[in-house]
Amino acid sequence: MTQRWTIIVAGGAGTRMGADVPKQFMLLGDKPVLVHTLDAFHRADPAMGLVVVLPEAHIEMWTQMCKEYATPPHIVAPGGATRYDSVASGLAAVPAEAEVVGVHDGVRPFVNRDVVCRCFAEAAKYGSAVPVIAPVDSFRRVKENGTSEIADRSALRAVQTPQVFDAALLRRAYAEGEGGAGFTDDASVVEALGVEIHLTEGDRLNIKITTPEDMVVGRAVLDKRLCD
Amino acid sequence: MTQRWTIIVAGGAGTRMGADVPKQFMLLGDKPVLVHTLDAFHRADPAMGLVVVLPEAHIEMWTQMCKEYATPPHIVAPGGATRYDSVASGLAAVPAEAEVVGVHDGVRPFVNRDVVCRCFAEAAKYGSAVPVIAPVDSFRRVKENGTSEIADRSALRAVQTPQVFDAALLRRAYAEGEGGAGFTDDASVVEALGVEIHLTEGDRLNIKITTPEDMVVGRAVLDKRLCD
Repeated sequence: MTQRWTIIVAGGAGTRMGADVPKQFMLLGDKPVLVHTLDAFHRADPAMGLVVVLPEAHIEMWTQMCKEYATPPHIVAPGGATRYDSVASGLAAVPAEAEVVGVHDGVRPFVNRDVVCRCFAEAAKYGSAVPVIAPVDSFRRVKENGTSEIADRSALRAVQTPQVFDAALLRRAYAEGEGGAGFTDDASVVEALGVEIHLTEGDRLNIKITTPEDMVVGRAVLDKRLCD
Repeated sequence: MTQRWTIIVAGGAGTRMGADVPKQFMLLGDKPVLVHTLDAFHRADPAMGLVVVLPEAHIEMWTQMCKEYATPPHIVAPGGATRYDSVASGLAAVPAEAEVVGVHDGVRPFVNRDVVCRCFAEAAKYGSAVPVIAPVDSFRRVKENGTSEIADRSALRAVQTPQVFDAALLRRAYAEGEGGAGFTDDASVVEALGVEIHLTEGDRLNIKITTPEDMVVGRAVLDKRLCD
């Protein structure tokens, strides 16, 4: 059986939320956002191993939450100074026998089974699988002189998570990434090895909860899910 | 007094919604989406002139709706085969004395007063004002050979509406645009004259209602507005 693991990165201090509670711990319906995220992976694939990366300062609060809410089994790893360091810490906690490893934003609680299963299946086949969606908006590109020009929307894809990779490939990318300046996601860390990234279809409702407005949207998505 | 006009383009047949009713006519709370959109402009600036561009086939239904819901005064103009043709038709219906003219998506009902007033004030000063927001997601660019590469998110801005212009500039752009193949928005039509586009800050809740998922989000945004 393929050993599948997902590293759920919940390292952000959530200062953009304008609330004392970091966004991954905010209640969305009956459960914290991060518990929804773990549930989503556990439901999609009960055999999936889970690592949650948290700032040291939040680990005790999280341990309490896990007692209060029925949270799927997982390993906790301490977060680092940057997202790159946090993923590296999570990767160090993934057992050596893992064959395919995904990295997922803790604040994307609505990832569905289709996306999870497709990403893992295609990463096993192609070495990587990154879910993307075609943007609805038009885009402009701001130039260094402060002017802007229209960007070709037809070529742009918004990148989601989980970003899933052959385990050896992801470990090699993080071993060679040297601190990760300039990397905004895991695909770019792996791409730096000169490896081609395989794209697959994401889901429009697989949103990232970053601002208070996103919590409003998140509650609506949750209500819709409960009605479906 | 500056003569301000907004052309609200509601030309789409809404086939992406999977519903018989085009999306601009769908009920959002107590009113159709398009009525919300007109209300938003009328509330932001009661002196603003409004032109609504609709497919010929929908004009009668819209006239009935305007009787049923208290809809701000406006001129109706017939839509064309493309968005470009529809805007040109709306522009022909804008009185000659207009000084600053905006073009807005009929399916962006949540545009707020700040965005409307800022766009019109800055367009009066700079000749154009296009509201943009920094995207939250990472992006990849798909290349012609089917591979992809990371796109520099820090340089990308998602474009919203209203896109507002000096009236003479917008009329000249549409007079010279020659049918508008390849134009995805009004900024690109004006830009084709060689004119620099002025960007201004948009609003994350100024969303475009394009899919059934967007209606879910739209209801949540509406509920939040009613509570604020």
